[in-house]
Amino acid sequence: MKMIKNAAGRLVPDKINGEKQIPFAGVNKYRPSGYKAKLPVRSCVDYPMDGNKVVKSLKDALIKSGIKDGMTISTHHHLRNGDVLTNTLFDTLKELGVKNIRWFPSASFPCHQHLIKYLEDGTIHHIEGSMNGPLGKFTSMGKMKGVGVLRSHGGRYQSVQDGEVHIDIAVIASPTADPFGNANGVTGKSACGLIGFALADSEYADKVIVVTDNLVPFPCLPWQIQGNNVDFVVEVASLGDPSKIVSGTTEVTKSPDRLLIAEYVAQFIDEAGIMKEGFSFQAGSGGTNLAFVLYLKERMKAKGVKARFVRGGSTKYLVELLEEGLTDYILDGQTFDLEGVRSMRENPNHVNTSPFTSYNFHGKGNFASIIDTAVLGATEVDINFNANVVSHSDGYLLHGIGGWQNCLYSKCTILAIPSFRDRIPVIVDEVTTLCGPGELIDVIITERGIAINPLRKDLIKAMKGSLLPIKTITQLRDEVFAICGGVPMKPKTDRKQVVAVVKWVDGTILDSVFKVVT
Amino acid sequence: MKMIKNAAGRLVPDKINGEKQIPFAGVNKYRPSGYKAKLPVRSCVDYPMDGNKVVKSLKDALIKSGIKDGMTISTHHHLRNGDVLTNTLFDTLKELGVKNIRWFPSASFPCHQHLIKYLEDGTIHHIEGSMNGPLGKFTSMGKMKGVGVLRSHGGRYQSVQDGEVHIDIAVIASPTADPFGNANGVTGKSACGLIGFALADSEYADKVIVVTDNLVPFPCLPWQIQGNNVDFVVEVASLGDPSKIVSGTTEVTKSPDRLLIAEYVAQFIDEAGIMKEGFSFQAGSGGTNLAFVLYLKERMKAKGVKARFVRGGSTKYLVELLEEGLTDYILDGQTFDLEGVRSMRENPNHVNTSPFTSYNFHGKGNFASIIDTAVLGATEVDINFNANVVSHSDGYLLHGIGGWQNCLYSKCTILAIPSFRDRIPVIVDEVTTLCGPGELIDVIITERGIAINPLRKDLIKAMKGSLLPIKTITQLRDEVFAICGGVPMKPKTDRKQVVAVVKWVDGTILDSVFKVVT
Repeated sequence: MKMIKNAAGRLVPDKINGEKQIPFAGVNKYRPSGYKAKLPVRSCVDYPMDGNKVVKSLKDALIKSGIKDGMTISTHHHLRNGDVLTNTLFDTLKELGVKNIRWFPSASFPCHQHLIKYLEDGTIHHIEGSMNGPLGKFTSMGKMKGVGVLRSHGGRYQSVQDGEVHIDIAVIASPTADPFGNANGVTGKSACGLIGFALADSEYADKVIVVTDNLVPFPCLPWQIQGNNVDFVVEVASLGDPSKIVSGTTEVTKSPDRLLIAEYVAQFIDEAGIMKEGFSFQAGSGGTNLAFVLYLKERMKAKGVKARFVRGGSTKYLVELLEEGLTDYILDGQTFDLEGVRSMRENPNHVNTSPFTSYNFHGKGNFASIIDTAVLGATEVDINFNANVVSHSDGYLLHGIGGWQNCLYSKCTILAIPSFRDRIPVIVDEVTTLCGPGELIDVIITERGIAINPLRKDLIKAMKGSLLPIKTITQLRDEVFAICGGVPMKPKTDRKQVVAVVKWVDGTILDSVFKVVT
Repeated sequence: MKMIKNAAGRLVPDKINGEKQIPFAGVNKYRPSGYKAKLPVRSCVDYPMDGNKVVKSLKDALIKSGIKDGMTISTHHHLRNGDVLTNTLFDTLKELGVKNIRWFPSASFPCHQHLIKYLEDGTIHHIEGSMNGPLGKFTSMGKMKGVGVLRSHGGRYQSVQDGEVHIDIAVIASPTADPFGNANGVTGKSACGLIGFALADSEYADKVIVVTDNLVPFPCLPWQIQGNNVDFVVEVASLGDPSKIVSGTTEVTKSPDRLLIAEYVAQFIDEAGIMKEGFSFQAGSGGTNLAFVLYLKERMKAKGVKARFVRGGSTKYLVELLEEGLTDYILDGQTFDLEGVRSMRENPNHVNTSPFTSYNFHGKGNFASIIDTAVLGATEVDINFNANVVSHSDGYLLHGIGGWQNCLYSKCTILAIPSFRDRIPVIVDEVTTLCGPGELIDVIITERGIAINPLRKDLIKAMKGSLLPIKTITQLRDEVFAICGGVPMKPKTDRKQVVAVVKWVDGTILDSVFKVVT
């Protein structure tokens, strides 16, 4: 492994886990060549003619799928922190004595701390997918056998589609399914709304196992996952803990600072002329973002403006917009609360989407760049508007990328962030880990001021005369540094030991995450 | 080109239009190897970031798609006999001076007689797809430059998926679409219900052009065709003649003989024990089949039996079943009348399907073999239960295969046919063209008797004691021959000149259609 400097000036390895990599070449600079993943032609002759693909257990399905050492096994994260199935899956793999698995989740959650023992004993070789909380800490300490690979939701689809990651066996937790393998997330006791993160897996994996705790007679509708892509169906008593799969409710922030940020964001979108008839927006699920939706809603009602569509992760606040006629559609990538699930089940205008439709950068366009404004978070932003979303200033890898990188392609990307957290500046000279190139980040909105990217002359012009506290990014930085007691310390890392890499939406390597030295 | 005898004993060419072919090897005998069609990796960089793919005309879109001589251009047939777009498309190709096009429709209709001049002047080299009416006659007379290829709906999907047919440009008539290319058939003045026959085209064609007469703001929902697969969008004043796209109503037969057949079919399904709680069936759109649905409905109501699903082509008769609670779902492949379109638009349990879900034999199963019974037609059936659906006893190619071959995989396939037409026997010693191997055809129901395939001992046993006129197939044949004045004449054909071939669902060659000598 050799370290090379990419177009963002970041040191990245030329190889990861033995495979050659392409360094980031700049935004929209890398052009893929070649063909999508090779998919074997199947035949109905090899599948039960009565459509019944049910086998007796997950273990049985894994054996029938030809499970062996070194395979890539994928899971999705729609069960969120209530996921029990993934832990059971690895218990089963351990029981089967399988080693060196590449685990390819669409994300991981604290509940997957259970898997640390399998990272330690060699059942799992490494993780490609977000490593939130405990798994991230484990990785940061250099304890994972292989190098982690962090991708956005769109990047995950792209990597599978392009054959960069070949999934041997996909295990798809399905709140409802039929014996043919059609499956969805809108009904059943483990309902999570939709299961679009498993789409790529169902389309491209060699073997696809649908696991359900609600087996219904054919046809299971809607078929968010199509049985025509499925090999085996397994019925289990329970996929997980419903109370942790979706929240009962999602809570708006009560922090005065965060509320101020949310109010600024709504005001900015209004004054910049983005909030107009037929507009669209996407907001994350954090407390600040939820508050922003409420402030924006008041402005929409006051001006009589209706959105054409809003993007989820959906919550009851987006559902209210839909039900009050303030948007024609919710285009949803995942549901965060029970109201989101209910709405998706009942309302045809609450539509399930997938990383293919929304985010895949190696398609004939995607939805992300059509959206008028995306309001996102970050762990750090630097004076060149570059942002970090995976690690903290202490160097620890603690979050996944999610759809964040993909959303940067919106027509106006706003980072709504506190200027500091726990007396550590969020606005810095240089981000610890580069996840989003500054040229795609248009506005930084903090509780103590707003910085517009100098590249966006149109926005600067539009906001001329606004009463909002518009400043330069360096002004903001200086203020924050002064409050926090000067220039923050750099994290202590060993720059010879790459523990994970951050991929860009086109599959190139944007940055490295280094081992934290304690 | 060499003629070889395939496993059905039929003479078939080893090459068609210069490409090597695989002869039919028997039902479920051929196992495909290799990989699906190679699809180039695309990049969002090459598509408009605002998602607006609208270009000014179809001509413009064709030029931007790199149109040139010898390309394969596909269309779908959901506009049925009201399709004007396909004729306009070829007028445009003629204007551009393009030659030797392989036209790859999912089916053709009498309205496409307009294209005969382009078959004559070399704009079109040959047709792969059904050649109904005038185009069939033209082909039968040996006037088409290349050899026609007839495939089932499932076979068409399979051929595209497997890379057997590479579509250069797909032109997708879309009753509603948005500028990104999301499209559907349920709304708009040219509404035809669904456009699933274009699914393979959208997924696999090199360039995909969506043409609409109802352009709506993004997002067009439901997105039966996904904009992520689309290159260009064209707005036109009109796609065709709505009154011919779907019938105002579909008419049940008034013929006493056909009504008798329909009644026999319903009685057979009931007495054989197929009509039970949670069963499923598929029936075509002919007058006899519609009558059968009405008779079966009465029996279902009388016995308090509900179907789990019924397959369309949908008509108001199926819609009534759904709306009266006699079936949970309609799984629909195409809508035949206005009630079908309305129901699909309004009722989430009236579900659009595609040849991928329903019929593709080279998938991990499909719906066709899950269905309890399929009631189909035929132009001829022979004493070995082999059936013909494309040509008449005079040798003329006059019909497409449609989903007929695929439906033969149902658990009980019934051909509901008159024993003769215009004093020409429908039951014969050997079919003119083999479209369906007898081992997949379980029951022949005519106005003068019912023949059960001897392979289906279970059905023979179940029907013991029935008052239905159950006979052997040879008994039926003898009766029909006697009525029609003896053994029918063979068609006059030149067996050295293959004008078209019939493919089986697995892509192998099942039979040849020969030039008719007049």
